[in-house]
Order: sequence, then C-alpha cells, then structure tokens
Amino acid sequence: MMLSEMSKEELLAFKDEAKKKYDDFKAKGLTLNMARGKPSSEQLDLTFGMLTVVKDSEDCIDEDGTDCRNYGGLDGISSAKKLFAPMLGVSSEELVICGNSSLNVMYDTIAKYLLFGVDKESKPWRDCGKIKWLCPCPGYDRHFLICESFGIEMIPVPMLNDGPDMDMIEKLAAEDESIKGIWCVPMYANPTGVTYSDEVVRRFAALKTKAADFRIFWDNAYCMHHLTDTPDRLLNILDECKKAGCPDKVVMFASTSKITYAGGGVAMAAASVNNVNYLKSLMTVQTIGFDKINQLRHAKFFGSFEGMIEHMKKHKEIVAPRFRVVLDTLDKEIAPLGIARWTKPNGGYFISFDAMEGCAKRIVSLCKEAGVVLTGAGATFPYGKDPKDSNIRIAPTYPPVEELVLAADLFATAVKLASAEKLLANK
Amino acid sequence: MMLSEMSKEELLAFKDEAKKKYDDFKAKGLTLNMARGKPSSEQLDLTFGMLTVVKDSEDCIDEDGTDCRNYGGLDGISSAKKLFAPMLGVSSEELVICGNSSLNVMYDTIAKYLLFGVDKESKPWRDCGKIKWLCPCPGYDRHFLICESFGIEMIPVPMLNDGPDMDMIEKLAAEDESIKGIWCVPMYANPTGVTYSDEVVRRFAALKTKAADFRIFWDNAYCMHHLTDTPDRLLNILDECKKAGCPDKVVMFASTSKITYAGGGVAMAAASVNNVNYLKSLMTVQTIGFDKINQLRHAKFFGSFEGMIEHMKKHKEIVAPRFRVVLDTLDKEIAPLGIARWTKPNGGYFISFDAMEGCAKRIVSLCKEAGVVLTGAGATFPYGKDPKDSNIRIAPTYPPVEELVLAADLFATAVKLASAEKLLANK
Repeated sequence: MMLSEMSKEELLAFKDEAKKKYDDFKAKGLTLNMARGKPSSEQLDLTFGMLTVVKDSEDCIDEDGTDCRNYGGLDGISSAKKLFAPMLGVSSEELVICGNSSLNVMYDTIAKYLLFGVDKESKPWRDCGKIKWLCPCPGYDRHFLICESFGIEMIPVPMLNDGPDMDMIEKLAAEDESIKGIWCVPMYANPTGVTYSDEVVRRFAALKTKAADFRIFWDNAYCMHHLTDTPDRLLNILDECKKAGCPDKVVMFASTSKITYAGGGVAMAAASVNNVNYLKSLMTVQTIGFDKINQLRHAKFFGSFEGMIEHMKKHKEIVAPRFRVVLDTLDKEIAPLGIARWTKPNGGYFISFDAMEGCAKRIVSLCKEAGVVLTGAGATFPYGKDPKDSNIRIAPTYPPVEELVLAADLFATAVKLASAEKLLANK
Repeated sequence: MMLSEMSKEELLAFKDEAKKKYDDFKAKGLTLNMARGKPSSEQLDLTFGMLTVVKDSEDCIDEDGTDCRNYGGLDGISSAKKLFAPMLGVSSEELVICGNSSLNVMYDTIAKYLLFGVDKESKPWRDCGKIKWLCPCPGYDRHFLICESFGIEMIPVPMLNDGPDMDMIEKLAAEDESIKGIWCVPMYANPTGVTYSDEVVRRFAALKTKAADFRIFWDNAYCMHHLTDTPDRLLNILDECKKAGCPDKVVMFASTSKITYAGGGVAMAAASVNNVNYLKSLMTVQTIGFDKINQLRHAKFFGSFEGMIEHMKKHKEIVAPRFRVVLDTLDKEIAPLGIARWTKPNGGYFISFDAMEGCAKRIVSLCKEAGVVLTGAGATFPYGKDPKDSNIRIAPTYPPVEELVLAADLFATAVKLASAEKLLANK
C-alpha cells in the first residue's frame, strides 16, 4: 500500500512498526560506512601483483630507455601513455600523466586558470571579477568544494536522464560572460549513474559561450567502471569538439584510483595539444616530474588497455552484488510504498536516492544514530544545500556484503520512519 | 704563473695552447651532462630493495591499521611521519607528507598564499598589489622560476660564507611591506654549499618584517647529504622561531628525491601546528590524500631515521669521489692561474664556480660546443641574469667517474681559454 493512501491510523501503526525495527537496529551497535565511494578490500586485493611488478633496478627502465627512478618526464612515461591514451580516446600528445589524484589535477588546473588564464592570450580569471560555474546536480561534492574554496559562484543545473539540462546550460552560457566553466561526470555520473547521451555530448561540443575562456571540466572518473556486461557508451567529447571547431573547449580527467589503488594510483589530464602544451608550460615550473615508477608499475601490470578492461571485469564481480543488495532491499521494502525514487546505474560507484521532500537530513541522521554513516544530506548540491532536502548518495562498494545487508535494511527502515513522520505532520 | 701577470705574448701562447687542447676535446665528440643535480645510476641502485619492501596486500597496512591502498590520510601515514619528523626536527603534528616533489609543495604553498593568504586572517597575496621576494644568490634556479612565473618581483641578496647577507635582509624586510618572503636552502646551499651559521638562523628567527604575512621558505633539500664524516650542523629554525615568539614565520620543505628516487620519492612540508592546520584546511579541498603506499615503502625500507642516516653514508661513498675529481682538476689546472674561485662543500650536490667577470656565458658555451652541458650561465640568479656573468653551477653527481674526469678537464680548458680571451681583449 502506498503510504500516501494510508489513513492517519494506518500511518501511525506503520510508523510504530518502523520505529520498533529502528530501535532494534540501534541496539545492535552497528558501525558501518556508506559515505564515500571507496573500493572494498576485496577490490584492492585484485591489484596485489602490481606491487612487485617493478622489482629491481633493471625493471625501472621504460621501453624508450627512460630511467623512471631519476628526474624528468614531466608529462608521463611512454608506456603509461600507451596504456592510458585509449582509455580517454586521445593521442599521446593530448595526455599528461600526473600524481595519484585526479581531484588534485582538477584543483590545480582551476588554480592555474585563476592565476594565469586558460591560455597565453586570456586574462587570468582572478582579474575577471566575479566568476561563476555551472554545476549539474546532484553532483560530486568535492567538485563543488573546489569552486566554493576559490570563491567561484556555483549555479545549479538539474541532471536529467541523459545528462544535465542542456537547454538551461545553453541559455546561461550564451548570456553570461562571467560563467567560465562546468563540472561534468559524463559516464556513470556521481551520484546519478547517468551516462551522457550522444546528443548531450554533441550539444556540449557545439555550446556557444559568451566567455571565450569557458572550459568544460570532463571528469571521466568512472569510464572503466561497468556493472553490467552491456556497458554504456560515451561519445568522445574531444573528437566532437574538434569536429565543432573548438578543440580547446574541454579538459578531461581520469585516474586509476578505483582501478588499482585509491591511495596509490595514477591520475591524468587530457585535452587538445594546444591546451596540453599550455598546461605543461605552467606545470614545468611546478614540478620536474611526477612519480614515474608508479606509472611504470601500472603499465607493466596491465600490459595493455585491453588488459585493463579485463581487469575491470573482476571489479564488476565484486561491486555488482553490492549494488544488488541495496537495490533489492529498496525494491522490496520501499518501492511498494511510493515514497522515494532511486537510480539503477549500469556503472560507477553510487545509487542516487530521492526521498520525499524534506526527509533526506532526517534519514541520514537516523542512520547515523544507529551507526551507519551516509554521505551528508545536501552534499550532492552546491554549498551543501539541497533545496528539496531530498537527495541521498548511497555508496555501496566499501562494506562487506553481510554488513551491507544490514546497512541497507537500516536505511530502508529509516526511510520508512522519516516518511511516516513527514506524512503525519501534515495530517 | 697567474694569468693576470702574463705579458701579451705569454697570454697569446697560453691561449693557443688552451685552444689546441679544446679542439682536441671537440674532436672527441663527447656527450656529457653536468647541468642538473641528478643522482647517478649507482646511487639509484642503492634503493632497489625499496621496490619490493611492500610486496603483498597485508604489507599495505600501516602500524596503526591504516590500509595504505585506500583513500584518506591527507597529511601522511603514521610510520612515515615517524621516519621523517626527526629529519626535519619537528613533531608529527608539525609535518605533512605529500607527493613526490618538494618543488611541487613549495609551488602549491605559494599558490595558496596568493589565492587565500598565509592564514585565515590575512589578505590573499593576489590582493596585495605588487609583491616581492628576497632571493639569496647564487641560488636555485627553480625557486626563482616559481617567483617569476607568479609575477613576484625578486630582489637579489648576496650569499656570504655563513648564509645570506643578513644586514641587507633585515634592512629590506623591515622597510618594505610588499616583501612577503625569502628562499633559503639553509644546509649545503644550492649551489654554494654554505650551511647557515647559528647566528644567521637566529637572526632569521628574530627577523622583524614590515609585512605581517612574511614567510621564510626553508628548503632543507640537502639536510641528509653529507660529503664528509664531520657533517655541518644546522640550527633548527622552527625551534628558534618558537623561542623568538614567531612560530608561524617559517615553512620547511624536504624530500627523498636524492635519498631514494628522484622520480619516485616522497616530499614533505613542516611548520608550526598553526601553519600546518591551515595548509591542511586548504589541501583537503585539493586532494583526498597523497600516495600512501610509497610513503609506506619508505618507512619499511629505512625502518628508522637512523637507518636513513646509515643509508646516506652509501651515497657519500659514491658522490664524494665525483666531487674530488672536479675539485682536484680545478686545484691542479685553475688554482695556480688566479682566474677563478670555487667552493669546496661539505655536502649537497653542487660546486659553485666564479669565473672572471664576463666569462661565465663564454665558458658554458665552449663546453656545450664540445659536448658537455652545464647549467646555463646566469641560471643561479633571479631572471637568469648574473650581473657579473661570473657564476657557474657545477653538478658532478650524475656522470660516471671516468666521464667526469674528461668533463672536468674540458671545463678547466674552457675556463683557461675564456679567461685568456678576456684578458687579451683588455691588453
């Protein structure tokens, strides 16, 4: 029975039952974490062979003779470029391999644009007065935090089923010169799981922006992270931008944080040769080079891009059942009640859950009190403010399956309780 | 015989002889590099055991239970902090362990001060109008390049035998609010090899600056790099600043680039808890954490700070003979001629060579034509401009000894030739 169709008495009984179950959970003294998109230990174990794949001095020489132990190689070693270029669909010259964190590369890129401008001719953004950024949401809280930290005003843009609301983006970008960029997680988006449609990618490539120094930040964090045997397909934005005559409009980012090690992977940026050469001209002041031995470990461990694709199937075997646990629980416990919507993604790390308006904070708080930490309600919106207090990001990858069963059950119970409270308050 | 005492005829004969020897060198077709302070392959081989010291999944758990393979640990893992805190003479809370490049950490720190200020209360430097920086020189070209890149005006300060000219620094810093900082390589300075005296360190700690947001950038790159059994000793600047009541005035930097791997080491910053907490509050937006597995490799390989000290003795055995080759050649070939001065450092990576005024560019160019690349003349001064065109940085560590013998001999020949040309031009 739909909760909205219940009488006050039925609702009260429903709430009491939920409350009783919730109190039982509290008594268990759980300590579980579904807050962040962290790989599980089982996933991390998959890569153990990489630790010793570079095992002596001779192993440290890359295919072109580069001694990875010494200085140099600002934009990455040859074998790592060969491995990762096909992942982003770019050439070796369009790729820069960096340290262990793509977030760091994105942050640094914005910092450079603020201090130096997006190319040699442009004004540094710090001299452009108030600047603004388009933020499809729900989105990735750490993207939003970068903007907030730099004082860049964020404009929320709704995420639709095939990508962000392009009508709105086209209108805003065409009108306002102070809008300098947009965050995109184009494949298995954080947290909605949406993969941008071909039409959305093409509209991005064709986007007319009032600001000549507008940049699309294309964070392709989950491009390898499929949950099914029929993966989504994403059009190559750089190719589309080239066709549209604006190859410099996009900068792409990715990492192996969830392919090898979140604490010891390799991150990268990719863009037009023009953009890459400009960024390298600034980076050469910042560092002599990133950790080349770790780049080599990756290249040797996977052998080829195809090797990496094969490896990701092992991740799928571990991750997909965890998504299943949460989705099955929601289907069984919540779907019949008509009190929420959620995504069933084909990849990525998250389930995006929309509770009844005004219930997200209460649900997260109930879960926390019972020992299950979720991503803070609101985190998926700029400034941490979800106008509807509805969206919750569920990250099912980290806990072991048996704990996840409990956590999902608690979550469903909290959703029931908060929804009943909400409906009763209006009766 | 001193070259200055020679008659024109004697000089001409001297020059002809030098020219003949130089042409012989050219005919050899050498390709050697003494441009950068790079460790040699023999040095890099010393660390090969580190590659496999973290060899399976269980090894990735740090002493406090942290799984180094996963996200987290912004300021570094516990065991790495224990290893490196004594190297910089700080507590664990005063230390942040970062990626592989201390240059990157210094660059980022200045970028953050430009965008956010040196603490929560201060104005971002970008809003302070023209800002300036004190640059002891000869100094490290990459330090100067950071300032140049950010548009920070550099004021050269002469290096004396016990550190930079403190009289000048005290006068300038007290007068000019736009002076926001100074570069220091306090131990075995790049390139002079000078270690700052206790008095100089104490004067830095007591430095009165017109700018309240003045910061000393204390790049202790060579603190472990002794060339003798009786190492220099450097006073702890942070301790002295605490005694002087200004613990926030200094930020220290170091790395293992020349201890383990230049292409895969670990870098760090150290400062007062106040400074460290502020930097961490900004860094947490930039990254979730640096490469913890590589930090763990370092901690396990060395075991303790004492282990690292022992390890550095092996470096000394490899590096000291290379310095000896160059110094012996200079003592034999150049000293009797009275045409140059050079340093005989107790540690570090460089010999600083002062040719007759107006000769440095010519010497570097002669060497280059004969196949030996030196650091560009002028590189050791802000904007690459040595007002006397005299200083040359010699980096003897990288070439094998037998090649170094040749390179040093060529260098001495080029010095003779350029000096004779110079003296003849004035006859």
